[in-house]
Amino acid sequence: MLWPMTSDSTSSQTAAVVMSAHARASADPDARAAVATDRSGYVPPSLPDAVVRCETVDDVVEAVRLAHTHGIPLVPRGAGTGLAAGASAHAGQVVIDVSRMNRILSIDPVEMIAVVEPGVLNAEVNAAAGEHGLFYAPDPASTAICSIGGNVATNAGGMWCAKYGVTRESVLGLRVVLADGRVLRTGRTTIKGVTGYDLNALFIGSEGTLGIVVEATLRLRPRPVRTETLAAYFADVEAAGRAASAITAARIQPSILELMDGPTLDAVDRAEGTRHRELGAAFLLAQTDGYGAHLELDEIARAIEPFATTVRRAADDDEAAALVKARRDAIPSLEKLGRVSIGDIAVPRNRLAEAFAGLEEISQRTGVRIFSIAHAADGNLHPMIVVDPEESITEGPAKVALGEMFHLAQRLGGTLTGEHGVGLLKREWVVEELGGTSIELQSAIKAALDPTGILNPGKAL
Amino acid sequence: MLWPMTSDSTSSQTAAVVMSAHARASADPDARAAVATDRSGYVPPSLPDAVVRCETVDDVVEAVRLAHTHGIPLVPRGAGTGLAAGASAHAGQVVIDVSRMNRILSIDPVEMIAVVEPGVLNAEVNAAAGEHGLFYAPDPASTAICSIGGNVATNAGGMWCAKYGVTRESVLGLRVVLADGRVLRTGRTTIKGVTGYDLNALFIGSEGTLGIVVEATLRLRPRPVRTETLAAYFADVEAAGRAASAITAARIQPSILELMDGPTLDAVDRAEGTRHRELGAAFLLAQTDGYGAHLELDEIARAIEPFATTVRRAADDDEAAALVKARRDAIPSLEKLGRVSIGDIAVPRNRLAEAFAGLEEISQRTGVRIFSIAHAADGNLHPMIVVDPEESITEGPAKVALGEMFHLAQRLGGTLTGEHGVGLLKREWVVEELGGTSIELQSAIKAALDPTGILNPGKAL
Repeated sequence: MLWPMTSDSTSSQTAAVVMSAHARASADPDARAAVATDRSGYVPPSLPDAVVRCETVDDVVEAVRLAHTHGIPLVPRGAGTGLAAGASAHAGQVVIDVSRMNRILSIDPVEMIAVVEPGVLNAEVNAAAGEHGLFYAPDPASTAICSIGGNVATNAGGMWCAKYGVTRESVLGLRVVLADGRVLRTGRTTIKGVTGYDLNALFIGSEGTLGIVVEATLRLRPRPVRTETLAAYFADVEAAGRAASAITAARIQPSILELMDGPTLDAVDRAEGTRHRELGAAFLLAQTDGYGAHLELDEIARAIEPFATTVRRAADDDEAAALVKARRDAIPSLEKLGRVSIGDIAVPRNRLAEAFAGLEEISQRTGVRIFSIAHAADGNLHPMIVVDPEESITEGPAKVALGEMFHLAQRLGGTLTGEHGVGLLKREWVVEELGGTSIELQSAIKAALDPTGILNPGKAL
Repeated sequence: MLWPMTSDSTSSQTAAVVMSAHARASADPDARAAVATDRSGYVPPSLPDAVVRCETVDDVVEAVRLAHTHGIPLVPRGAGTGLAAGASAHAGQVVIDVSRMNRILSIDPVEMIAVVEPGVLNAEVNAAAGEHGLFYAPDPASTAICSIGGNVATNAGGMWCAKYGVTRESVLGLRVVLADGRVLRTGRTTIKGVTGYDLNALFIGSEGTLGIVVEATLRLRPRPVRTETLAAYFADVEAAGRAASAITAARIQPSILELMDGPTLDAVDRAEGTRHRELGAAFLLAQTDGYGAHLELDEIARAIEPFATTVRRAADDDEAAALVKARRDAIPSLEKLGRVSIGDIAVPRNRLAEAFAGLEEISQRTGVRIFSIAHAADGNLHPMIVVDPEESITEGPAKVALGEMFHLAQRLGGTLTGEHGVGLLKREWVVEELGGTSIELQSAIKAALDPTGILNPGKAL
């Protein structure tokens, strides 16, 4: 069903020649190199044959029609900030780059809906929404550089998901170019609606394997009237994990609950000149919002007090922003230390401390450096493997550690990927997690929507 | 693709004979009559050939295997409280009744998860969750009599959806018996996870046409620490609609926002001996919850004050419960007046007043009595057509009015069904709403999952 992955020069030339009929296509080596991979650390064995820098829906339709007619495999691409090599491309493939489709088409401040093109950055949506006192809830750490199309492709999460859900809960409708070039509308502009199967949810998180998203109708939410923030420090990461679980167990609903371990704090301090690590070997950031945010934060402080060594409540917006920034700086700070491979396991929320202990054990056993952060309220951990810049993350100890992480998650009743997607890098564990029947059904759906298998072959499933 | 609908006696006898191999099957006329339709008011032209009263997953598997082998169309059935004839069955079909699969298998109060069989009633889940200080958010008006399996099949909503989302947002995983008798697990027990396509969302709302749900893993939520309630009365329903839109526009997030028109208030008063209608010709129920519930309700009172004639804030839990009960009594009260057909359109939230005006106009033009209630925060209206008990709701003026409602919703940018599903009664408008490409894709998915078309044929699509 999937297009054979080949670097055969004949088929490569064919793909480039066919796509050269498209006014936005380029076979320039620099242009191809610029779209060959994402931020996962994965290095493809070869470059894609061409890139089509689409500026309109019609550009995408035309490219897909050409590919459909000639059986050319396509790799859809937004901002290229993915962490699972979902947008990586190699010889024989053509990249459909939608990053220039970057307009906010409309914002309806009364209905609290935005209609955007896929190349719009997540932060740009939030800036535009903010002008109307609104916000867009899914906020990946990469908000400043990641695009809505990629967010949809991976069903991206972020910090605010603790309270507001992931991308699926904030995307009301899509326009999608199908494998044969037809354009489909999914979803609706009303908050509720159940006519027909939930194709909208089917495309969200499908990593570009079922269609190419060319427009999204987003649900915006009112900016909270009040937000309260604290940071707590702990003697070790297990204590921080137990504190996070205690918040869940106390039935408090933080809008943000983020955890960082000691090595990550060190890296942030070194990169940013801050001094978090002095205060503890693990860090928990908690935010509440709404009319009773201050009362709810009191409860959080009470719940974590038995576990923490220091609790600091932000006195004003600047202090709060500095604490949030520490968390957002984590990945960029680690990227200064070497090549980073970001894990994305999720476990039941009361097993966070066990997950952190398991990661330390994996690090010791494999000799791989692992730095850990977590969206703690969702039980979603990002264990970050850092290797030397010339080392591979797809073979050797880094790969062994990645497999061990998956088995750790599985042992704790969890999952391989909470919000980054499977991409190319996690495919081998998918069957183990989902089972043969599920894979068979998913393959049947893939075959029904993309019979010739030209859409992002070799990814996700 | 779909099984031909036939009342041919040969095939009927075949279905009954084949299914008689199942220990839980019955061809008794009373047993068949008891499962022939739902609460939509629809009267099937004939009885199903048999009913299989399943008590275990294996019972369902065995029935589906028999049906698969012999090509017998099946109609899955929970509590039979659907409002779109999604569980109606006729000659040649066999009903798979899962209402006896009614155990709560486990509740994990720390992870806030319940695992239940499909026949468990919605209210039973909430009662069990309540013992741990938790609740299950999707709460259809029929909570006391509707089952989780049916809630999943229709992606049911309810009053609390205003804040907590519909069934899709509260179902983490499913066990589903597929068309060939295999058992599939979808979803997971963690809050987040994106491995593979979102099969979970695909089954939710698919009205039994893709598989039979035999187990659901539900997300529970902490009971709010504080809840505040008010009721407001208005000179007419348009004013109430404008007040509801004003709450949305003021960016307040009620946990409940329900609207009832004057005729519905009359019916409730008559059935329950209450005196709501004296206070106004339309009623708005608003509830807020959380640490700042009292502050948030102040804002609601401020937003609706320009529109209301009377605003009554509940002084205690009993008063609040009485106000909520008035809304829950609406449908049962109307059912005392005649045969009820409940519409389910959804419109953009700022067009509620227009929708009510449009419904009044439809009532005048068609001569059909229409009573209206709405989940106002979601823009989801339930216009209720009441005809004499001997009149049909599927032909004549009632049917004309139903079609007009759909076109009203469409004109306002809305949808045919917000939360009840398409079933049998709304099929003819589905193509107009979704378009040919979507229908083609949905049919392809149906064909991929149920190649011989034995699962609830003729419904949903």
